[in-house]
Amino acid sequence: MGTVPLLTDEEASAEALAVFDDIRATRGTDFINNFWRALAHDPATLKATWERLKVVMAPGALDPLVKEMLYIAVSTANGCEYCVHSHTAAARAKGMSPEMHGELLAVIGMAAQTNALVTAMQVETDEVFRA
Amino acid sequence: MGTVPLLTDEEASAEALAVFDDIRATRGTDFINNFWRALAHDPATLKATWERLKVVMAPGALDPLVKEMLYIAVSTANGCEYCVHSHTAAARAKGMSPEMHGELLAVIGMAAQTNALVTAMQVETDEVFRA
Amino acid sequence: MGTVPLLTDEEASAEALAVFDDIRATRGTDFINNFWRALAHDPATLKATWERLKVVMAPGALDPLVKEMLYIAVSTANGCEYCVHSHTAAARAKGMSPEMHGELLAVIGMAAQTNALVTAMQVETDEVFRA
Amino acid sequence: MGTVPLLTDEEASAEALAVFDDIRATRGTDFINNFWRALAHDPATLKATWERLKVVMAPGALDPLVKEMLYIAVSTANGCEYCVHSHTAAARAKGMSPEMHGELLAVIGMAAQTNALVTAMQVETDEVFRA
Amino acid sequence: MGTVPLLTDEEASAEALAVFDDIRATRGTDFINNFWRALAHDPATLKATWERLKVVMAPGALDPLVKEMLYIAVSTANGCEYCVHSHTAAARAKGMSPEMHGELLAVIGMAAQTNALVTAMQVETDEVFRA
Amino acid sequence: MGTVPLLTDEEASAEALAVFDDIRATRGTDFINNFWRALAHDPATLKATWERLKVVMAPGALDPLVKEMLYIAVSTANGCEYCVHSHTAAARAKGMSPEMHGELLAVIGMAAQTNALVTAMQVETDEVFRA
Repeated sequence: MGTVPLLTDEEASAEALAVFDDIRATRGTDFINNFWRALAHDPATLKATWERLKVVMAPGALDPLVKEMLYIAVSTANGCEYCVHSHTAAARAKGMSPEMHGELLAVIGMAAQTNALVTAMQVETDEVFRA
Repeated sequence: MGTVPLLTDEEASAEALAVFDDIRATRGTDFINNFWRALAHDPATLKATWERLKVVMAPGALDPLVKEMLYIAVSTANGCEYCVHSHTAAARAKGMSPEMHGELLAVIGMAAQTNALVTAMQVETDEVFRA
Repeated sequence: MGTVPLLTDEEASAEALAVFDDIRATRGTDFINNFWRALAHDPATLKATWERLKVVMAPGALDPLVKEMLYIAVSTANGCEYCVHSHTAAARAKGMSPEMHGELLAVIGMAAQTNALVTAMQVETDEVFRA
Repeated sequence: MGTVPLLTDEEASAEALAVFDDIRATRGTDFINNFWRALAHDPATLKATWERLKVVMAPGALDPLVKEMLYIAVSTANGCEYCVHSHTAAARAKGMSPEMHGELLAVIGMAAQTNALVTAMQVETDEVFRA
Repeated sequence: MGTVPLLTDEEASAEALAVFDDIRATRGTDFINNFWRALAHDPATLKATWERLKVVMAPGALDPLVKEMLYIAVSTANGCEYCVHSHTAAARAKGMSPEMHGELLAVIGMAAQTNALVTAMQVETDEVFRA
Repeated sequence: MGTVPLLTDEEASAEALAVFDDIRATRGTDFINNFWRALAHDPATLKATWERLKVVMAPGALDPLVKEMLYIAVSTANGCEYCVHSHTAAARAKGMSPEMHGELLAVIGMAAQTNALVTAMQVETDEVFRA
């Protein structure tokens, strides 16, 4: 179990349930994943997080699949097991092919490697990059 | 200065210069950024890193601009100042608009936030995400 | 199992047992949690770690509950599952209410988000903050 | 310079200026720090971030000084130079004494150390902490 | 289960099997650990990763046991459970004694602690270290 | 400037000066680097940190040069600029050759890369590694 229990629909407050309803309507599914059931202990944070997430992950200048892959990249670098699993599932649902997944992993690995090399060598930023 | 000096073309070994030549030819520019000049102290690592990077960042199932944005996402989460600067410059050169940059930053911030919330609550991964 | 087995009282050395005794006396409980049983393989590190922890977490200019919440914040950012669990339990034992926990999580999430935004934008530190 | 320039009041959009005005009114100062001037390139993210920050950092079950110290703890673990500077300044302005600062640093250092020890030993979470 | 299934020898492609064969020959064992079975979904990354790893971890100016301990140190700081387990097992197989393991952990913990203290105090680098 | 000023010998307390004296005697140099001058604001933490560091970094089952390289590895993964610089200087003073430095960097980069790949794939730990 986590540091807070997961709230069922029956245990959630009216404010939390209203967020669950919007999640269900937005995603077109009855399923509420554990992250939201955990956050439901603090309805204000639940609501603020969901409402911002809905805006941030919506189609815009970047398409939703690219956004899911970016989410996987950040979650991997931050070592968040849950987030890697949930956003990999979401990316697949949005069309990520095995080839795209393979390339995503290769970029993540490459970036982690050169990040470490740069930090170990303390390379100074080229002036041209700051322009 | 970093933990290793940056090698000029005159100071670099023949093996390192051959890598510089390939970087120049591949990128269509005479400019060699500091990362490669620092790595030139270890020509074998320079060569292995460049040759892998060239493959990983090439067009494929994901386009090069998406790959640059993924690189920025990882570099941000890893706190690599040089890498954030160099890959933001590269993403711009490949067509990242201010709107795309804004959305990229919003996703990175959102992911960092929910990564932290998930970790603090130690949310268990939903079975459906593991399928 | 971890990378070292957990030592029972019977398996622990005399030096490790003396630390266990002090943990028990200081905390007023017979329970020794797994961290100390794992560290018992290296009695010198066990002793140094416990003795410093006892001083650092004692009441002072900051009260012990605030210190536990700071510990949760650092452990979350470092992605330490065990530490998040153990210090959340400790904070609750010292009086952390659900409301305090909710606000703690909100601050942790907010900080993670703005840390990422700042790093992605490479914002220069205002002179006034360095004074 | 960062990856985005800092916008002056003259350069900021009307939507961004409205946020600057609220920051000024809330904090009782004309000063707008660089984080907000950088974020002003994306007024929607600027507004969402500021409005959530204002709520999260307000007095509640935890007092604002404790929240600033939590922010320092997370920012340190995430390696955000700007954030460490800005929130240390904010904590001082809210009454953090040198003794409190010293204890804050000691807890941050202690947590980082035991986080690493736990991870290196892969200690299993005690059942009692999950209850 | 992970975000990709683990491929058996029967499921792996010919290109992946060729890498498995080289791992087996190099290590003198029939055992292929899960990391390689997961990577086998992307034979090009599997091959590139293995071939570079084989070179990097080979005896050179540093002996293979020191390299395994360095690997544990990085994996701990990055919070990679699998990597801590696999490289601790590898270090033991290469002769890491309990005393060496204890000192390794003590250095890792010490470094994590002073890294955090330095970051929280934002200590400027002494000029003499940059020479 | 950092979040605390650096104390000169004249500004340091008697307790802090006694630690400075021991650092000078132990290292055989009059030079006190900035980390200790910053920590001098909190003589108790200064003393506890130095006394533990002195023990941890002393010759033992691992030689001091290996310990410095482990310190560089952790500091790189944690993104601590000061620590990377100071421990690279210390490793050189203890005999790290350019070849050793090159191999150290290659291992750090390799580990960072495979840590990321493992986390992105969420590879389950092989049972044999837990034995």
